[in-house]
Amino acid sequence: MPRYSCIIEYEGTDYHGWQKQNDCPSIQQSLIEAIEKFCGQKVDVIASGRTDAGVHAIAQVAHFDLNKNHPIEKVMGAINFHLRPQPISVIDCKVVDENFHARFSANKRYYVYRIINRRAPLVLESNRAWHVAVPLNVSLMEDAAKVLIGRHDFSSFRDSHCQAKSPVRTLDNISINKSGDLVEINIDAQSFLHHMVRIIVGTLKLVGEGKWNKGDLVEALESKKREFAGPTAPACGLYFEKVDYD
Amino acid sequence: MPRYSCIIEYEGTDYHGWQKQNDCPSIQQSLIEAIEKFCGQKVDVIASGRTDAGVHAIAQVAHFDLNKNHPIEKVMGAINFHLRPQPISVIDCKVVDENFHARFSANKRYYVYRIINRRAPLVLESNRAWHVAVPLNVSLMEDAAKVLIGRHDFSSFRDSHCQAKSPVRTLDNISINKSGDLVEINIDAQSFLHHMVRIIVGTLKLVGEGKWNKGDLVEALESKKREFAGPTAPACGLYFEKVDYD
Repeated sequence: MPRYSCIIEYEGTDYHGWQKQNDCPSIQQSLIEAIEKFCGQKVDVIASGRTDAGVHAIAQVAHFDLNKNHPIEKVMGAINFHLRPQPISVIDCKVVDENFHARFSANKRYYVYRIINRRAPLVLESNRAWHVAVPLNVSLMEDAAKVLIGRHDFSSFRDSHCQAKSPVRTLDNISINKSGDLVEINIDAQSFLHHMVRIIVGTLKLVGEGKWNKGDLVEALESKKREFAGPTAPACGLYFEKVDYD
Repeated sequence: MPRYSCIIEYEGTDYHGWQKQNDCPSIQQSLIEAIEKFCGQKVDVIASGRTDAGVHAIAQVAHFDLNKNHPIEKVMGAINFHLRPQPISVIDCKVVDENFHARFSANKRYYVYRIINRRAPLVLESNRAWHVAVPLNVSLMEDAAKVLIGRHDFSSFRDSHCQAKSPVRTLDNISINKSGDLVEINIDAQSFLHHMVRIIVGTLKLVGEGKWNKGDLVEALESKKREFAGPTAPACGLYFEKVDYD
């Protein structure tokens, strides 16, 4: 039973997230169906991490087992053929050791959140970024964000439906870059809580527009209560960027 | 009669180009209608340059005259309101001198052409880049492109329907940058011939895939015949990037 690991790009707008669900389109379900059409086998496809409805992926990683060996070019080409015209694409594929697990072997996950900061409605970035019309002070956001780096109880920054046993996570880095009206927030950690990146971004936006200062962010973190942090930023700006393995 | 100049972003996929036509959606027609809905006036909207069907704009410039003064925030907001939900957005607006002319006052126009060079189908860049599956050697393309810089008779690089009186143009610069699987070709000149950028890109692609060398490009240029240059690259990868005025 060879195990295949794929790198997958998707545009999440019209999907109810990675995870398969009854009667709702999901990335996972689309992949399962495409693989079945290719080789007749109904496999489980396991991702490095689930993404929410509307969230995109630049390089999600997922693995699955097939009953027999196929050349990787054929696997990739056939899955992409059967995925058409859906906005999901296998951009790379390889055979991995049977001990490889897309989720449990992952060392680090990288997200990028894109904001377009301008008055005018979005066009080329529609559904690909959060449209924030009020001017953001990016250096204030960057300075405040440092408070979150390191190992913390992120209870204030997780959705009330989060099922993780522990709210403690180690945020390795947050960096914020502005280029024209594009503000990109890069966040990486071994793992994240449910909605964690989006709540961090929604809170940093309050700092950027001057409604909050760094001290408010410290208070929100220390409160360990979801209602003390800012709102959850919209899904359309979030991209699962990549994942590191050993 | 105050003259307004706007910077306009658009996603050209569903439009038959800038120029208004009977029974076909065009960017110009959409703007004319939005302005009429805002102030009741049917104006002419003149762009710095026409773009073809499917070509996008990051920062097109267009001017028009209104019968009375309106605050620029109001002009911009009202036009954007009436453009909804079309993928056209006025991202800036100012009052200009009555001698300003979006087309005739332009000193330099900048285009960027985006190629995604990979096997897998496009997702996040679908309709926003040319999908080239065969591997491109970008340094060969860059080296060959230098041949085109400067003042030349570009007859080989203009569409047979081009109406410009002279085929002579001065190409100020071409640069090609690769970042991951994205290849961006930046081209700037005071003005261009019809399809000139797309024919240049279609020809450079032949160099990148090793079918042509630099000498073939020189021959194509010197032949002054359209049939000696490469094919016209698809519209979806082309962006009108910006325009310079005095």
